[in-house]
Amino acid sequence: MTALPTDPRENLVRLIRCPSVTPLEAGVLSALQEMLEPLEFSVFRPVFAEPGMEDVENLFARRGGGGAHLVFAGHVDVVPPGEEAAWRLPPFGGEIRDGMLFGRGAVDMKGGIACFVAALARLLERGDMPHGQISLLISGDEEGPAVNGTPKLLQWAAERGERFDACLLGEPTSREALGDMMKVGRRGSLSAAITVTGRQGHVAYPDRADNPVTGLMRLLAALKDRPLDLGNERFQPSNLEITTFDVGNPSVNVIPERATAAFNVRFNDEWSVATLQAELTKRLEAAAQRDEIGRQRITFAIDWKAAPAQVFLTRNELLTNALAKAVEDQTGRRPEISTSGGTSDARFIKDACPVVEFGLVGQTMHMVDERVALAELEELTRIYELFITRWFGAQS
Amino acid sequence: MTALPTDPRENLVRLIRCPSVTPLEAGVLSALQEMLEPLEFSVFRPVFAEPGMEDVENLFARRGGGGAHLVFAGHVDVVPPGEEAAWRLPPFGGEIRDGMLFGRGAVDMKGGIACFVAALARLLERGDMPHGQISLLISGDEEGPAVNGTPKLLQWAAERGERFDACLLGEPTSREALGDMMKVGRRGSLSAAITVTGRQGHVAYPDRADNPVTGLMRLLAALKDRPLDLGNERFQPSNLEITTFDVGNPSVNVIPERATAAFNVRFNDEWSVATLQAELTKRLEAAAQRDEIGRQRITFAIDWKAAPAQVFLTRNELLTNALAKAVEDQTGRRPEISTSGGTSDARFIKDACPVVEFGLVGQTMHMVDERVALAELEELTRIYELFITRWFGAQS
Ligand SMILES: [Zn+2]
Ligand SMILES: [Zn+2]
Repeated sequence: MTALPTDPRENLVRLIRCPSVTPLEAGVLSALQEMLEPLEFSVFRPVFAEPGMEDVENLFARRGGGGAHLVFAGHVDVVPPGEEAAWRLPPFGGEIRDGMLFGRGAVDMKGGIACFVAALARLLERGDMPHGQISLLISGDEEGPAVNGTPKLLQWAAERGERFDACLLGEPTSREALGDMMKVGRRGSLSAAITVTGRQGHVAYPDRADNPVTGLMRLLAALKDRPLDLGNERFQPSNLEITTFDVGNPSVNVIPERATAAFNVRFNDEWSVATLQAELTKRLEAAAQRDEIGRQRITFAIDWKAAPAQVFLTRNELLTNALAKAVEDQTGRRPEISTSGGTSDARFIKDACPVVEFGLVGQTMHMVDERVALAELEELTRIYELFITRWFGAQS
Repeated sequence: MTALPTDPRENLVRLIRCPSVTPLEAGVLSALQEMLEPLEFSVFRPVFAEPGMEDVENLFARRGGGGAHLVFAGHVDVVPPGEEAAWRLPPFGGEIRDGMLFGRGAVDMKGGIACFVAALARLLERGDMPHGQISLLISGDEEGPAVNGTPKLLQWAAERGERFDACLLGEPTSREALGDMMKVGRRGSLSAAITVTGRQGHVAYPDRADNPVTGLMRLLAALKDRPLDLGNERFQPSNLEITTFDVGNPSVNVIPERATAAFNVRFNDEWSVATLQAELTKRLEAAAQRDEIGRQRITFAIDWKAAPAQVFLTRNELLTNALAKAVEDQTGRRPEISTSGGTSDARFIKDACPVVEFGLVGQTMHMVDERVALAELEELTRIYELFITRWFGAQS
């Protein structure tokens, strides 16, 4: 019989050595499958496709025939390593220096998967595997368009009749030290482009033209001139950033015809996508009509980008307490219960079951020399063991 | 003996049929030379060159051995015709329909040259050619970079010992009807690009980034938030237009690192290039440091574009009166004495002698179906005759 994958470091080295830059599988799911099968998991490898996109392979694994159902979610795809020569150790080598394991995905988030698998292996080896159902829902498309990964995997599982009671997403949520932060929600995200159409003309005759750059600046200023909200005890304030502004007029003598900008809003639970769109549209309309110094109305079009992310917040205390106590028991740190940061696949999972997020310190994610301390891998494995035991223990 | 070129329409047809799109000569200066030699002009065709630019051929012609010296200035180069199929009559055909002569350059400004030549021919034929010196200073590079045309031609003439007492520039200054406007000055023109450097980051973590788009909008708003001046009896107010704003960030999740905009100011005689640069720099510095809500200093660079145009104003009453009276005597209209509109080669000539500008109705210049009424050509020829006679008559 094969030795069980109880060592998170060995598990992680295997996963890092597969260069699974989105959307490539590169052997990483096969490696994971080989770890899970000795743990009595049934493993599925559904491939999802979409016209105009590359196919993506994913993994779903389950064990147990009945009872409470805990699902661990994550992704095996990684962002590109960038300039490989800039790395101290090769990004897909899985090499160790000074107690740190280097590699793309070490913290985001092959590390979290390696620890969860090790936690399961230890529970099984000790005979402490809880009664109930445990699944892994692993996307190959989190760092990419996120279309052929978690959303379709959830739908696929639902069609197979899978019902989940809670989800732990293993993204790197810790900030400075393992355990200092867990996430129970995320702000929503809404993007749009605004195009202002003016009238082209010569700069010497501004009265015969209508400068769309000035008009667009007025509209954008109106979007930002007062806060969307002040935040609340659950979320930080919503924030709007202008991400680009483009005209492309090479001629210094010409007032251009058109100007376009884009913005993104990260919004809290004071808003839904619909109420936020309504508020922003109201601000734009008001600014477009304002005419205190005789300026003409601004003609603009707004193009809301597809697939905005709704805000979410988990209010399941059994789940959040089980995680927070596991963290505190192992690390002595009481984790900050946060809703900060970017979006994650939790925005899809929250429609299937309550979801919390906890994982490694994310400081080096997406950077050159992404790396994790070996001691941190060991500690996260123990936290995951404690969490699994505590969560199943609290059922019934 | 050849018939003298007394008919402005025939002169103009000859010039239009040479497709002298900047910087091509296309036979147009040879045609002009053939008109001027029977009028007892010595004709020179200096070619000027500049590294990295195409050579440009120009024309200087002079008659008379002493006495007051009047120079007529203009250009034979034209802007491209655009889509030729969109023209009702071919842009280089010189064809007539409904009393209008069609063609690229008909009003800007082969028409003015054709009329001035016809005026000279009539004066000579009648025996009314004034005593004194008359020159033509004709650029082949007014619509282009304006480097190898009028500025070098003036220098070339000065080196030959030419001294001018007054200049008439034949640009199309009339607005609705021939004679409704002449120009005695032009605003200056100053262009610059501003680049703001921020700090790139993820939109979900704006505190760790510094958005240069917002910073650049603040700087540009400060340039426009109060008028540069209110204008005066000689000039309209100075005006600043933002001509482009470029970031080029395709990612809706990323706060970009850098944003660039360009602007152009048309400024009146309340300013010089130097005082205007100082004022704009002061406004930018103040906006960059303003920090009433804890925002960090904006890091920016300003790149003043080469060859700004100084403002100019002709205060030579003898010259302006001679022109205004000639216009009024012929048309019955008292021309508006204006300083409006774009820059012209008068910005170079004003350093050599007092300069005024008068010519055809400019409505169709640079457009498809550029055209001039035959009646207007005849009337402009008579105005130029009257002006020449009156100006030389006022000398002594
Ligand atoms: Zn991740
Ligand atoms: Zn012109």
